[in-house]
Amino acid sequence: MDPYTDISAFQQSRLRYHPVLPEILEQSASLKSVELEDGTLPRNDGLKTLFPLTGELPAIKLENDLNDQKIGGKPLRVGVFFSGGQAPGGHNVITGLYDALQKYHPESSLFGFLGGPSGLISGKSKPITAALLQNYQNLGGFDLLGSDRTKFETSTQIRILENVKKMDLDGLVVIGGDDSNTNAAFLAEYFLAQKCKTKVIGVPKTIDGDLKGSLIECSFGFDTASKTYSAIIGNLARDLISAKKYYYFVKLMGRSASSVTLECALQTHPNYALIGEEIAAKGLLLSDVVQLLTDLICERSKRSKEYGLILVPEGLLEFIPDCHALIKELSVIEKHHSKEVITDQLSAEAKSCFLLLPEMVQNQLLLDLDPHGNLQVSKIETERLLIALVSSELEQRKARGEYAGKFNAQPLFCGYEGRSCSPSNFDANYCYALGHVAAGLIQNNLTGYMAAVKGLSDSVSNWQPIGVPLVSLMDFEERKGVQKAVIRKALVNLKGKPYLFFKEQCDHWAYEDDYCYPGPIQYFGPKELTEQITYTLALESNR
Amino acid sequence: MDPYTDISAFQQSRLRYHPVLPEILEQSASLKSVELEDGTLPRNDGLKTLFPLTGELPAIKLENDLNDQKIGGKPLRVGVFFSGGQAPGGHNVITGLYDALQKYHPESSLFGFLGGPSGLISGKSKPITAALLQNYQNLGGFDLLGSDRTKFETSTQIRILENVKKMDLDGLVVIGGDDSNTNAAFLAEYFLAQKCKTKVIGVPKTIDGDLKGSLIECSFGFDTASKTYSAIIGNLARDLISAKKYYYFVKLMGRSASSVTLECALQTHPNYALIGEEIAAKGLLLSDVVQLLTDLICERSKRSKEYGLILVPEGLLEFIPDCHALIKELSVIEKHHSKEVITDQLSAEAKSCFLLLPEMVQNQLLLDLDPHGNLQVSKIETERLLIALVSSELEQRKARGEYAGKFNAQPLFCGYEGRSCSPSNFDANYCYALGHVAAGLIQNNLTGYMAAVKGLSDSVSNWQPIGVPLVSLMDFEERKGVQKAVIRKALVNLKGKPYLFFKEQCDHWAYEDDYCYPGPIQYFGPKELTEQITYTLALESNR
Repeated sequence: MDPYTDISAFQQSRLRYHPVLPEILEQSASLKSVELEDGTLPRNDGLKTLFPLTGELPAIKLENDLNDQKIGGKPLRVGVFFSGGQAPGGHNVITGLYDALQKYHPESSLFGFLGGPSGLISGKSKPITAALLQNYQNLGGFDLLGSDRTKFETSTQIRILENVKKMDLDGLVVIGGDDSNTNAAFLAEYFLAQKCKTKVIGVPKTIDGDLKGSLIECSFGFDTASKTYSAIIGNLARDLISAKKYYYFVKLMGRSASSVTLECALQTHPNYALIGEEIAAKGLLLSDVVQLLTDLICERSKRSKEYGLILVPEGLLEFIPDCHALIKELSVIEKHHSKEVITDQLSAEAKSCFLLLPEMVQNQLLLDLDPHGNLQVSKIETERLLIALVSSELEQRKARGEYAGKFNAQPLFCGYEGRSCSPSNFDANYCYALGHVAAGLIQNNLTGYMAAVKGLSDSVSNWQPIGVPLVSLMDFEERKGVQKAVIRKALVNLKGKPYLFFKEQCDHWAYEDDYCYPGPIQYFGPKELTEQITYTLALESNR
Repeated sequence: MDPYTDISAFQQSRLRYHPVLPEILEQSASLKSVELEDGTLPRNDGLKTLFPLTGELPAIKLENDLNDQKIGGKPLRVGVFFSGGQAPGGHNVITGLYDALQKYHPESSLFGFLGGPSGLISGKSKPITAALLQNYQNLGGFDLLGSDRTKFETSTQIRILENVKKMDLDGLVVIGGDDSNTNAAFLAEYFLAQKCKTKVIGVPKTIDGDLKGSLIECSFGFDTASKTYSAIIGNLARDLISAKKYYYFVKLMGRSASSVTLECALQTHPNYALIGEEIAAKGLLLSDVVQLLTDLICERSKRSKEYGLILVPEGLLEFIPDCHALIKELSVIEKHHSKEVITDQLSAEAKSCFLLLPEMVQNQLLLDLDPHGNLQVSKIETERLLIALVSSELEQRKARGEYAGKFNAQPLFCGYEGRSCSPSNFDANYCYALGHVAAGLIQNNLTGYMAAVKGLSDSVSNWQPIGVPLVSLMDFEERKGVQKAVIRKALVNLKGKPYLFFKEQCDHWAYEDDYCYPGPIQYFGPKELTEQITYTLALESNR
């Protein structure tokens, strides 16, 4: 051990890792695009008028171009940037993109826009070199380029157009989530309309796991983040079964969908996991959710279990009808007034829901929206809100002689530490492949596509590179009171296998304490550890 | 992947791990004790009257007994229990103890007391078998037996005596921290005085790293916990250097000493790590600490860095003189009164310090003490307190035109998830060895000793099993206003190499963002990962 080094033994070992490539991407530097069987995906008719040029593209797959006609063509010039929150594997997308472009033509150039979309708008970029990438491959974070959440609205498209023209870019790769890929779809359409040659390709990034479709099996980062959280949750489970004195209320990152919570539940077997989509489908009010948790705690108390593990998705409140209505009303109210002025503008129902909440949560709800018009749910301490409401309900039951237990709860949040950790081998390989796919799509003059891989639950060598039209992922949604065309969020499917498998077991988990301890991500050692995929992916693929 | 199994692939792989044993413990089933050179350790004279029988024992080492005289002696009957908070590796102490007793005589018996010291007092135990241990070895938690924080005061000693007599125990092994080993020391003395044959042996357990002495190089669990926290902190550092918009205030478990914080700082290179011992030595008041952090934030802001990583030890407030004085006064005040009644009983200084604090922290300070008379510092959200005070100071500086930055802070707590995780290979081996040492001490009819291992920074095969008299670790301390003989806490040594090495670099870290990312604990793969020891141990051993 050399205490004087700034780079850990772990970082050194990960820098030496060589991602595994799918055979198709390994074999040839040149790829041809072929329309997928069933490549014409259903889409919302209203989108056709918004996307006259890119609205009806078919899904395609990339195959080896045995004639290798494109090799020896002119070098490609491509720009890339990160957009939105970090997800493990981002650096590998860029490494994959770089390596594929170099294989295609050694004089190809890759430029990274600095600081996220704002760098694209201001035209700040740096050339990406092999020497630079050597310090980032297989490591977490977006620090190679940085990122932000700037939205590239219509007004900024002109500046972006000027920048990509000035830089003579053949392609622009957007590494982002649903909002960023929505922007990418509009930009692809705009560039085509402006007869700009720059192809726009999106890469599905989000730890939340809600950027998904029939052909997008999962977004990158979901695997690593859910395993990182599950390791922590497993440790907490082992801690509570040892001490038997706490309830851990663990809030899990995932702004909208409860996919991370569902995956972590499958990995760790908590006593209860709140799934927002289920609550919305059943129309449970906040008070119903509190009753349901309190019932669980009382029943466990009768069995002499004064401890437990509850998973809470970050986006919970937006799934609870009365809270959702309140949030919706708040989202269009100017918040730079006093609390009294604001509450007077609420409907009677929303106001009464607001006044039920502890003051801490009221204040958190009055924070500003993010630049995409979303409520900053990570600022709302839902885990503390639930503890406060459950405590008070337990007190009332105690007063009525219905409960005689002890309730000692600890709020916890698994969030930021899962966004920038080193990608699991799965995400390292997946992202490296996605970078290659993005290069292959540009090489084939395709624009308005999302780079994707089919067959992710199979062994890496069999993975299939595909391109999915961005518009096929879109729908209309209300934002700040206005209907907007956006990439739809893939919520937890209540008829899907991961959820059904969870429901089969969750009653048992509620009382029997069948906690499972997945341990920290292992990058080395037995294959059953290093090549593990998520339950969600395995179950959705029938494995 | 089989989604129907309750035991993860990780658990399975850890159950198959065989801890490495030091050569001395591997070679022979029988060990003899030999007085250590310099075995007579200095001790507090006042202790002699409290410990007439065990007060002047020498430190000893265990060596192979080439005559193997003790083999073939009668089988040993030993009891063991966990005491206090969980630490990774506890199950391996018991496995090591069991295996050593079996090697010594196959008819030896081991009994585990259930639920911690309370099980010892009530006499609830279960026999430990190889079949049982198979499901726990190398895994975290104390769930094989459970644990609690019951103090075995003089009044309960009689019941314990009856229980060990009834069970005909030759030895009793206490796996605990400073308070539990204090209890063990008194029990050893009491048993001897009562002419009870049961030998009492302590095992140094605490993730806090503050149970240490000239011969106790580290407590078990410190290695795993500090690595678990450092992995999370490293992820957070990567996250903030990517997004550049947050200050993370990370509170780290460690009730008294700042050893965990220091170790995590050495592993991750934060912008600032508050070391309680340093603050106490400099006599910094709470307002000084706030000034110091605010200065850092302002200076970073001037350099366009509106983000940063601050580590906060859980026990911070007790090191800050004005807070310490307040806590001390509060510890002897009856708390079942209103806040007004309580504050009126405080001295003027303590009252003014109390009134400076945000209400949330005031309430947390008014919680009850734990059974050992310690303030429940883990309930005090020091990270939020500092954010609140720093925010308000920044507002004032902004108003005076001295600061024009943005301060967006996130409070985080690394705690419970580090107590029950699977032990690192270091802790798995160390604990397995400690179990063997405890058996060796009992076999040699020694009582009032702590099982220990010398040379921990060396390769496992060279580790030296030793026994350290418990009384040699004791001193007088004030508890609830009374001087009590207790095992002294090993605070961060401000003249020690780990601290001095930290101080050499911390000014650089403050502004240069030299974050280091240690990654999650690896149990398999390259030796430089799997056999890594802590910086604290390496630096203290001159490696």
